[in-house]
Amino acid sequence: MSDSSVLTMTIDSTKTSVTVVGLGAMGAALASAFLEAGHPTTVWNRTPARAEPLMAAGALRAGSVAAAVEDGGVTMLCVRDHAAVRELLDPLADRLAGKAVVNLTSSTPEDARSTAEWAARHGVRYLDGAIMVPVPLIGGPDAQVLYSGSAEVFEEHRGTLLALGGEAEFLGAEPGLASLYDLGMLDVFFAGMASFLHAAAVMTADGVTARTFLPYANRVMAILPATLEGLARDVDQGRYPGDEDTLDMNDAALEHIVVTSRARGVDPGLPALVRALTRGAIADGRGGEGFSAVVEQLRSPGAATPGRSSA
Amino acid sequence: MSDSSVLTMTIDSTKTSVTVVGLGAMGAALASAFLEAGHPTTVWNRTPARAEPLMAAGALRAGSVAAAVEDGGVTMLCVRDHAAVRELLDPLADRLAGKAVVNLTSSTPEDARSTAEWAARHGVRYLDGAIMVPVPLIGGPDAQVLYSGSAEVFEEHRGTLLALGGEAEFLGAEPGLASLYDLGMLDVFFAGMASFLHAAAVMTADGVTARTFLPYANRVMAILPATLEGLARDVDQGRYPGDEDTLDMNDAALEHIVVTSRARGVDPGLPALVRALTRGAIADGRGGEGFSAVVEQLRSPGAATPGRSSA
Repeated sequence: MSDSSVLTMTIDSTKTSVTVVGLGAMGAALASAFLEAGHPTTVWNRTPARAEPLMAAGALRAGSVAAAVEDGGVTMLCVRDHAAVRELLDPLADRLAGKAVVNLTSSTPEDARSTAEWAARHGVRYLDGAIMVPVPLIGGPDAQVLYSGSAEVFEEHRGTLLALGGEAEFLGAEPGLASLYDLGMLDVFFAGMASFLHAAAVMTADGVTARTFLPYANRVMAILPATLEGLARDVDQGRYPGDEDTLDMNDAALEHIVVTSRARGVDPGLPALVRALTRGAIADGRGGEGFSAVVEQLRSPGAATPGRSSA
Repeated sequence: MSDSSVLTMTIDSTKTSVTVVGLGAMGAALASAFLEAGHPTTVWNRTPARAEPLMAAGALRAGSVAAAVEDGGVTMLCVRDHAAVRELLDPLADRLAGKAVVNLTSSTPEDARSTAEWAARHGVRYLDGAIMVPVPLIGGPDAQVLYSGSAEVFEEHRGTLLALGGEAEFLGAEPGLASLYDLGMLDVFFAGMASFLHAAAVMTADGVTARTFLPYANRVMAILPATLEGLARDVDQGRYPGDEDTLDMNDAALEHIVVTSRARGVDPGLPALVRALTRGAIADGRGGEGFSAVVEQLRSPGAATPGRSSA
């Protein structure tokens, strides 16, 4: 989205008016997307200057957060953290009663539930959301936002939420779900990135470039969905048969990864942590079971794994 | 592969004769694949009884490992570990001089190099290999085996190696390469499995089944190749620009994952280790850089990360 494209958009007064509170990089991208879709858009930010580029594109700047939320048919929050959300909302309880609030601030499920409880006590209609894509994708076809909480708010404002782009997906009435799924996906995402960088540190120590290794890592990405399907089945059944591979076999491979990392002066922490989980499961008598049995280790905080002691 | 299908195969005496040393689950699968492809196949195992089903399928059992290697146009090793390889090979140096040995025993690059040096000293033609698939896939179209070491042995016996199925890929003359790539891929594979199980432990604590979460994890698998391409470019250039996301932003998300794990009694070790790497990079002044900068942390064993202290 270029500034010039924003400047050419015209506001359609028949569309739902939107208030965006918080104009960090993500909040500003949200406001731009609403403006591009023609929504009358009111903005507020603790540092008012952040609003100026949006005003040039047709946004109204409110003089106070109270005035800002008066203005919107729906109020979107995108601030630093959960504490900032509560600090903003607490004085506004009366003004927000009966109104729709969509909180897109990154948070934990517990934060989302706590804000939802606050909202319920004050008659505020609350939808929690988790933005699954980086700033540049907002407003485009690849944007993904997950929602949970008030199904009514989601249905009523679905068209408005779609201005953010791509997909708007409602996960259920339990307000922590959007955050829960978000964090689960990020958990897998960060481990994927970290393990690739770990492997790249090992490969490059031997003169193999990261780009040379990339297609091999991508072969792993291509087979993981089928592997994860087996793990998911095992986890849900609570049985870890290990048809093709066993933890005893995995342990030998993990040992080779740890030794190979260390021989190159590369931090062996990541494979060592997986090996510790595997060994914990083997010590529990699960050596003949599959890797999926590691879920039991993750669930039993009594076992000593290196990651746990440090966390 | 069923036993009956093996029984119907006939040996073609014009094909290269193969010796398979080591009849664990994988070694037996290799011998079966050579028999199915019609290769005269001689087998040897420390416990002779393991050879019996293969003899029923046409294999010859040698009375000693020395006799076994005399018999083969190419000798394949698939034993417990590197120590077992050297224990077997050392007494056979004279008999193997001038012969081709393909070592498919799981090992580290250092093990492979050490065996290759032994082979060079004794005039043995040495190819190292890493089997990338579990036992049931051997002989089928999805089998993948990586090779490194003697290009001559690889070319000469390529047709024979293809009896193991799918793909035979030669990575280069440096004998450790097959093992290096193997361990790099496994590094990414284990982290993918472990992080999915970690996310599943968190999700299931809130009543979301692992199978419900699976398609969301698979969305991550689908976007990772594009993400890894960016990381690989940064690693090879030694610059970590962080266009879309910065380590400072990543840190907040990782903190949410750790807190959410702990709130459910789930071991937070895996996200805590990634967070420790991120924080180490931030402490080094890289907070405005991208996640790819973590590779520098992995390469600098001085930094204190929880994984490192435990490894």
